[in-house]
Order: sequence, then C-alpha cells, then structure tokens
Amino acid sequence: MRSVTLRFQAMTLKKPFHFELIHTSKKSRARVGRIHTPHGIIDTPNFVGVGTNATMKAVDSALAHDVGLQLMFCNTYHLMLQPGTQTIKEAGGLHKFMNRTTPIITDSGGFQVFSLAYGTVKDELKSRGQKTANNAVLNISEDGVLFRSYRDGAKVLLTPETSVAAQKDLGADIIIPFDELPPYHISAQKLKNSLDRTHRWEKRSLDAHLANPQNQAMYAVIHGGIDPEMRKESAEFLTNLPFDGFAIGGSLGKTKEQMIEMLTLLMPRIPTEAPNHLLGIADLASLEPCITLGVDTFDSSHPTRCARHGLLFTTQGDVKILNSSNRTDFGPIDPQCSCSVCSRYSRAYLHHLFKAKEVTGHILATIHNLHFMVQLMANYRQRILNDEI
Amino acid sequence: MRSVTLRFQAMTLKKPFHFELIHTSKKSRARVGRIHTPHGIIDTPNFVGVGTNATMKAVDSALAHDVGLQLMFCNTYHLMLQPGTQTIKEAGGLHKFMNRTTPIITDSGGFQVFSLAYGTVKDELKSRGQKTANNAVLNISEDGVLFRSYRDGAKVLLTPETSVAAQKDLGADIIIPFDELPPYHISAQKLKNSLDRTHRWEKRSLDAHLANPQNQAMYAVIHGGIDPEMRKESAEFLTNLPFDGFAIGGSLGKTKEQMIEMLTLLMPRIPTEAPNHLLGIADLASLEPCITLGVDTFDSSHPTRCARHGLLFTTQGDVKILNSSNRTDFGPIDPQCSCSVCSRYSRAYLHHLFKAKEVTGHILATIHNLHFMVQLMANYRQRILNDEI
Repeated sequence: MRSVTLRFQAMTLKKPFHFELIHTSKKSRARVGRIHTPHGIIDTPNFVGVGTNATMKAVDSALAHDVGLQLMFCNTYHLMLQPGTQTIKEAGGLHKFMNRTTPIITDSGGFQVFSLAYGTVKDELKSRGQKTANNAVLNISEDGVLFRSYRDGAKVLLTPETSVAAQKDLGADIIIPFDELPPYHISAQKLKNSLDRTHRWEKRSLDAHLANPQNQAMYAVIHGGIDPEMRKESAEFLTNLPFDGFAIGGSLGKTKEQMIEMLTLLMPRIPTEAPNHLLGIADLASLEPCITLGVDTFDSSHPTRCARHGLLFTTQGDVKILNSSNRTDFGPIDPQCSCSVCSRYSRAYLHHLFKAKEVTGHILATIHNLHFMVQLMANYRQRILNDEI
Repeated sequence: MRSVTLRFQAMTLKKPFHFELIHTSKKSRARVGRIHTPHGIIDTPNFVGVGTNATMKAVDSALAHDVGLQLMFCNTYHLMLQPGTQTIKEAGGLHKFMNRTTPIITDSGGFQVFSLAYGTVKDELKSRGQKTANNAVLNISEDGVLFRSYRDGAKVLLTPETSVAAQKDLGADIIIPFDELPPYHISAQKLKNSLDRTHRWEKRSLDAHLANPQNQAMYAVIHGGIDPEMRKESAEFLTNLPFDGFAIGGSLGKTKEQMIEMLTLLMPRIPTEAPNHLLGIADLASLEPCITLGVDTFDSSHPTRCARHGLLFTTQGDVKILNSSNRTDFGPIDPQCSCSVCSRYSRAYLHHLFKAKEVTGHILATIHNLHFMVQLMANYRQRILNDEI
C-alpha cells in the first residue's frame, strides 16, 4: 500500500528540474519564466556568472549569494585538471566543495579544448589564431580529443562519455553534452562534418547522462556555425532528443547584426516549453535584442573581467574608474544602484584602490558589476511582465 | 549661564580619548584595558591590522568590521602620495573615505621615508641594505626629509609639521609624531645624535598637534635603538611630555631574546595610566612575552601577508595550505575556529583556490588569519582577567 502511494506521489510530483513559463510578452517573443532545479529557482531571463575554477573571480560563494546571482557557470575542463573531478566528488560535489547552495551549470570541456586546438573565435576574427596555436591537443578522432594537461603534462582523453562522467562527479544542476567548437574560418563541408560529429557526440553524451541522471538536467548545444541551413538542421536534430533545455553555441557571425539574424531564425525552432541558454554572450548591448527573441539565460565573464579592469557598469553608461574625473568624486558609482558597494563607498575611494593596485578594488568593482547584471535582468523581467518589450 | 553649564560639562566629561585600566594580572605586568576613542573602544591587549593604503589587503572595511578588527593602522607616507591627504580631507577624513566606523591609527611617514634612505632593519640584518639603496631621499636636515615621490617624481618635504598636518587631514583617532628610524648598524654617537633630533622632532610634532587637537590622540615613539641607556633616556624625555600614549619604535635587537630584554627594561618606565603600542611586531611567538610585560597593542602586516602566501594560523600551529596533505582534507582550516571561512569552506577548497591562483583564496585566508588574531587576543584578555598569565 505504502509503495503504491509513494509511486503515485512520484508520478504526480513535478520533476526536480522543470521550466515554468510565467508570461510571454505581447510585444515580442520575450518571456518570463522560472527554471526549477534541485538547488532552487532561476528566474528568467537571467545573467549567469562565470566561476571557472569553482569561484567567481574575487568573490566567494557567500558574497555571490548576497549579490543575488542565481546560476553560476563552472568549467569542467579547468576543474578536471585542478583539483580533479574525483576530488570534488569526494567533497560531495561542486555545491558542497564551494559551499554554494544555489544552482550551478557546468560545460563539457569541449569549448576550452577546441579553443586550444583552433584558437578562440575572437582570436580568429582578429587573425590572431592559428590551427596549430599550441601543441596541447594531441589527437582529435571520432572517439574524442586527446590533450596534454597544462598543469602537469599528463595526457587527458575527453570524450562524450568522460565529459559526462566528469560532470556527474561535479554534480551541477545543469550539464552540457560534449561538442566540437568548429573554427570560424571553415569550409561548408568541414563545418557539415563537424556538425554531424557533434550531433553524434551529443547523442552519446545524452545516452551516458540518461543511464545515470542523478537529478541533473542536460541542455543540448545547437551548432552549425554561421550557416543558416546547418543551424536549422542542428535545431531539428537536437530538439527531437529528450534534452531538458537548449543552449546555442559556436560562432553566430562576425557582428551583432549577424548574431541577431541567426537567432531570429533559430529561436522559433527551439521548443518554448524548455529553457534555453545563449553560451558566452552577455554584453550589455546584446541583451535586449536577444531577450526579445526569447533567450532565457546568458553567461559571460565580461562583467567580472570589466570589473577587474576598472570598467564599472551604471544606469548612465560605463564608468572608467581610473579616469581622473573620479579622483575627487565622493558620490557613489551609480546613484541609482542599491548594491553594498554603492551604499558604502565612493568613486574616489574605488579610484584610489585601483590606483594603489589594491585587490579590494577588484572585489568591490566585481560585486558592483554583478549586482548591476542581477538588477538589470530583474528590470527586464518586469518590463516583459508589463509587455513593454 | 548656558556657556558656564557647557564649560562645566566639558570639564566633568571624560576626554574623547582616554585609557581605562580594567585589570592587571597578579602574575605579571599583563593588563586588560579599554582605549576609548571618538570612534569607539579598543579592548587591550589587541592586534592592530595594517591597512596601508586605506584598506586591509583583500578585505574591505565591512569585512574587517565583521571580523572584529577594532583598530586599523594606515600609513601616512603611502596616503600622502596616493590619493593625497588633501583628497581624503575633502572626503571628510579617512573614516568616511574608507567607510570605517571604528578606530584608526596613522603613523608619521618617518618609518617609510627612512626605510628608503637606510633600507629596512630587516634588510640590514640580512645585509641586503645600503645607505644609498636608492635615490628617493634627496636631503635630511634638522627641518625634516626631502624625498622624491615614487608615484610621480614630485619632491615631497616631510617635517614634523607637514607630517602632523597630513595626519590632521587624515583624521585618525591616534596619530604619531615624526621620528627618525636610525639604521641598525650605527655608531653610539650617531645614534645619540639621531635620538636627540627625534626628540626635537617629536616635541615639534606634539606642539603642532596641540595647536589643533581635532579630538585626535598622539602617541610618542620611544627610540634609542639597542642601547639601553638611550632607551631609558628616550622614555624619560617623552613621558614628561603630554602625549596620550607611548609607542615603542626602532630596532630592539637582532633576536626575540634581545627584544624581550629591552622591553623588560623599558615597560616599567612607561606610565601605566596611558596606553602603549609596540610598533610593527605581532608574530605569534612574541605576543605572550610582550603582553606579560604590559604591552597593550601590536600592529603587523604579518598575519595578512602570511595569508596571501597560504600560511594559515590555527590553534594547532601553522598550516601551509598548498601542502598536498590538504588536497583532499574536507575539514575546516581549524576545527576550533569560529570564523566565517572555517564554518563555510574546507582546507581542500582553499588548497584548490591557491593552486588555481584565485584571489578568492587570498580573501578567505586573510579573513581567517585576521579572525585568528582577534580571537587570540580575546583569549589573552580572558587569561589576564583570570590571572593566568
């Protein structure tokens, strides 16, 4: 009797991971939702902070929590090499290891390992990249990628199965299948070969994941580079597999306009009942056009990297804190900001900390920029609820 | 009538700065007291954190407050050059500039400028120093020291009067008269000349201070190097001037034993009704012998510098967090520690952060070591109250 009741409850209870669509704007595809995870809710649209090595740069888990950062992106490639995913598994998973109580997403390691092989898209666009940029990648095959650890020179094999196993050790709420990041400059045929292999790898990743779901969700990564037909094909292929959400990866073009054009084509092909994620893009100018196309979450190290270089986001535009105009400006970074930095410290103080090369400056600037992103996304959600965008 | 009442109140009220002696141990000269300042109380004996550039390294004022650090030491030399004491005055003083609500002490700038001229005592003892170590110091005269700013090459004149004026701009609760830090290797005659000039400089500093007290207190700095007679002479001279407290500066010997010997001679010559301070010494091994000789406060950058190098203080001795034994140690740095780091993060996590060169590691290590010092001094106070030391 008891087991029947339990089974009935299990059937009627929602899955630990699910997406709740709250409102779609009358003006656009912009939508407000909630991603439910085993570690709590992510309100969407939202910004996802990048905590590569199991910490945000210059901000610990307690401060990241205070800032209101609901989802953090950690990098499997880095954590495989240091401290090793086995160590994190022994710690009880990434949440316990870094004492984060709220949701985490990890990537597959593919992005980093292919950046080693091909250089980053940015490098390529600036003609800085070379296919043979370094010798870290030893072999790429149908099986996966063999590379050399930058930490100790050990050979590491990254395949769909080892990537998923690593992400099982980490235990993030959302994980990502192993994919190839093709170079930007690539022939149509090579892009097609890469896409087909990526699809096979993503299917293998999904199978490995579903054999041991561990309450994790897996987002597919839609590829196809700057080829509209291949993007369509990728969306078609992946949305027919039982992924929990859909990320968009790889290069979407040289310019913001090309990116928007591609997303305009792509977003209607992603099921509205699932959450989606735009990988690696969250510059301020891109957010609104992407949100109105229906993008739910955005990750980027841009806000924290800007902070460390003294570029502070405000409702009146960016502030270069090292500019001498801030030297005796005893007002806050942004009078409209409610963050713990703006309520405590002046532009003059932050200017001084950066001049004196004090790490405290990096900490305060990072808290401010993260809070700015959190608040900005909350404002977007309100505007969508009001059908303003 | 009103003015008479006010004058009467002023006479009966305690001075904004005063020392309250609570208990002297039955076992030693160790004592528990309270230094009352315009920005609150400093329980003694206590550790004084070093926040050279108007911030602790890697910890902002809010965190320093949370850790319980009651007195912070800021360096006038550094703040004169960046951001300039005039800027801090415009900000409303150092407390407002750095948003610190609790007590601050500043030094005169003498220590730094003479370190430029002679090298530090440590450099000398390690035979690394040269009198002409660099060309920053242009001239030393009865008036003061002319030096070149390392920031912009501008000539800066530091005299008793300009040092006090700078410290008036900063507005710390406790300020220090301009003094000479003589080299360790110095003839008796040169040391005597230096001491006499230091006494004239300290008297000029006190006069400049008393002309405009601004609710600040001034501690004398007792000099005399490693010469017991000159130390006695310095104590005799300075304790006959109306200073609010007495600091002990300069070299006290090559070894801890020599330092203790000198303090044994010196401490009984300092009035017990005034607070005293041991400049620049707070290594763990020195604390207890100094406390039992009656030292009230100790400043040192040692705990925060150790933290940044991954040396963590615990009740069981120092922990080198980068040691591989910590790689999979999922317990706290110190099971007996109640700090926010030990309650949240493991040795394994800190080990990882240091391995990955994440600034977050420096932040957490600094919080832990500062908390350790605060707790250690609270324990010393309790042991004195119990007449245990």
